[in-house]
Amino acid sequence: MPQTGLQMQSTLRGDGVLEVSLADVEVPSLGPGDVLVRVEATPINPSDLGLLFGPADMTTASVSGPDDRPILTAKVTPAALKAAAGRIDQALPVGNEGAGVVIEAGDSEAAQALLGRTVAGVGGGMYAQYRCLPAAFCLLLSEDTTPAEGASCFVNPLTALGMVETMKLENHTALVHTAAASNLGQMLNKICLADGVPLVNIVRRPEQAELLRGIGAKLVCDSSQPSFMSDLTDALAETGATLAFDATGGGRLAGQILACMERAALRTAGEFSRYGSTTHKQVYIYGGLDQSPTELQRNFGMAWGIGGWLLTPFLQRVGAAKGQELRQRVADEIKTTFASHYTREVSLAEALQLDAIRGYGRQSTGEKYLIQPNKGL
Amino acid sequence: MPQTGLQMQSTLRGDGVLEVSLADVEVPSLGPGDVLVRVEATPINPSDLGLLFGPADMTTASVSGPDDRPILTAKVTPAALKAAAGRIDQALPVGNEGAGVVIEAGDSEAAQALLGRTVAGVGGGMYAQYRCLPAAFCLLLSEDTTPAEGASCFVNPLTALGMVETMKLENHTALVHTAAASNLGQMLNKICLADGVPLVNIVRRPEQAELLRGIGAKLVCDSSQPSFMSDLTDALAETGATLAFDATGGGRLAGQILACMERAALRTAGEFSRYGSTTHKQVYIYGGLDQSPTELQRNFGMAWGIGGWLLTPFLQRVGAAKGQELRQRVADEIKTTFASHYTREVSLAEALQLDAIRGYGRQSTGEKYLIQPNKGL
Repeated sequence: MPQTGLQMQSTLRGDGVLEVSLADVEVPSLGPGDVLVRVEATPINPSDLGLLFGPADMTTASVSGPDDRPILTAKVTPAALKAAAGRIDQALPVGNEGAGVVIEAGDSEAAQALLGRTVAGVGGGMYAQYRCLPAAFCLLLSEDTTPAEGASCFVNPLTALGMVETMKLENHTALVHTAAASNLGQMLNKICLADGVPLVNIVRRPEQAELLRGIGAKLVCDSSQPSFMSDLTDALAETGATLAFDATGGGRLAGQILACMERAALRTAGEFSRYGSTTHKQVYIYGGLDQSPTELQRNFGMAWGIGGWLLTPFLQRVGAAKGQELRQRVADEIKTTFASHYTREVSLAEALQLDAIRGYGRQSTGEKYLIQPNKGL
Repeated sequence: MPQTGLQMQSTLRGDGVLEVSLADVEVPSLGPGDVLVRVEATPINPSDLGLLFGPADMTTASVSGPDDRPILTAKVTPAALKAAAGRIDQALPVGNEGAGVVIEAGDSEAAQALLGRTVAGVGGGMYAQYRCLPAAFCLLLSEDTTPAEGASCFVNPLTALGMVETMKLENHTALVHTAAASNLGQMLNKICLADGVPLVNIVRRPEQAELLRGIGAKLVCDSSQPSFMSDLTDALAETGATLAFDATGGGRLAGQILACMERAALRTAGEFSRYGSTTHKQVYIYGGLDQSPTELQRNFGMAWGIGGWLLTPFLQRVGAAKGQELRQRVADEIKTTFASHYTREVSLAEALQLDAIRGYGRQSTGEKYLIQPNKGL
């Protein structure tokens, strides 16, 4: 059994420098319910970048050290440093999820059942050669599923499923999704087609619209087109969608969605009301692809809400049984509905080279990196 | 009994002109459950102005016609006209609430019980000499309450009480209020002092802070002060307030409140989380004193929400029994907790003169007009 392993750590130093490097850390001893996973594949999700690079200005990034132990540094402005005071001088492990092989297991039945098997895991710190996790944080994959296939079992699949479940919980009957050609967006399309949920896809480029139509999407609105607002209103009127999940967060898009929902609602409203329609319109912001401020024109009556949406509180809200049901669906459909595609596979060290950072840091739709922490070691 | 009476009507004409005038309308015949109220006092609330002047550019307003039958006109831009398509060429009566004497009553017991009594009424169209209302829309005032004292029984008092009830319903334990020196804000202070609810008042000027401290407000933050953000954070930390009601709507204030709530929450948070605190922070926008776009920096983690808040859906949410309990409290405390102060009393015709419009149109804190529809007639 390994005594130590490489782990990627992100440190926001009190002197205003972000430092990301690979540390040799001791493999912890297992509790009865724990397993030790040799991590074979772990994705770089947009949700990992916030912790990885914090509030650093990545245009100032540079890399030093040997090729197999790179040290990435970047500057952090005093204001950004102050805003991130809670993490100063802590070496934080990174990586929300991944998959690998259980090479050691605690004494409990749940842990022993995973020994030697390929599992997906969640819980942070997955950008590492080894990760000790409670067995309950692992999802057993079928014998014919590889770690690369199972690397993204949690963040995107459960978020996409969570959107549909939230829709049901909050009494909506159709969905809107932005940045809809993303890996997650493609999953959501497959789920909605399978489950008969009307879905309005919003994309930013014609080729993204084509991609979605190619996988069966029925309603795609391209925000780069002059007819966007009327296209969106038509699609909302057709579906009755009053709930949107927005991956971008900034700018006017969330407000535009609410305005078009209101226009769609007013098409069938009765008497004029100065307060707008009584139809409740909701946008949840679950990502921050656009870091600029959210701007709301408030031209959508008074029955509206905007809020943040995160996977963890959602899972707490629905409870353990529903959570397990959703996880099992992911495991069962990991090669179809929930298949992820990666642009490039890199080692831990390669993930800290500037060319790689420029690639995955762009967060372009369809561009996704997979780290293989034990590759070539 | 009167056959006709004056009624203020607002018409957005299809040719892009807003016209507000006084019409002689027939007094309707009463159903068994109805009463006819001779309206003696009816306030001009900010919530009336949206219907009264619609989207007109009031800098273009002019008045024609005789002094006792003024006709106010103002221009409406084509874009604004399109946005208000639902009300074009309809002569809409105005005035949410008021008080007067029941001069005729339907046969039902509920209606007969109000005959000859002074009541407050709600239901729109109160800027009129006479208003036929279901008895259920009326609140019986005590014998020693005048119509002027009871004119504002619904909009402000129930909104202020609704804030406290919403706080309880949504599991918050303290409140934040903006434009807090308003008539409504003063009521809210009295309610919170009486009910032991911690309240953080946000005002825009030192004299408003003084006014509130003069009526016993403990926590007042002045957004014109350089120390506003830290003052607010301190007050939020002290009270644990995680729910705000915002009368302004536009600009950065709602986002600043969320940011300060987040800072206050992080003072006692444990481990650093890249998603911010797990404390849910909520702002409800219930007014639009600032018509500019709402701008959110989203520097407050992911556990947050913003939405519109209106009295009517709130009353539907809490149900008839709770609604009646709140109304009775208003009637009982109309001369103390829920007393309103008016800057000027005007007739229906005087309310359409330009100097009056400039006065109440400003929506300055503390400036409030009362219409006396039967004054001098």
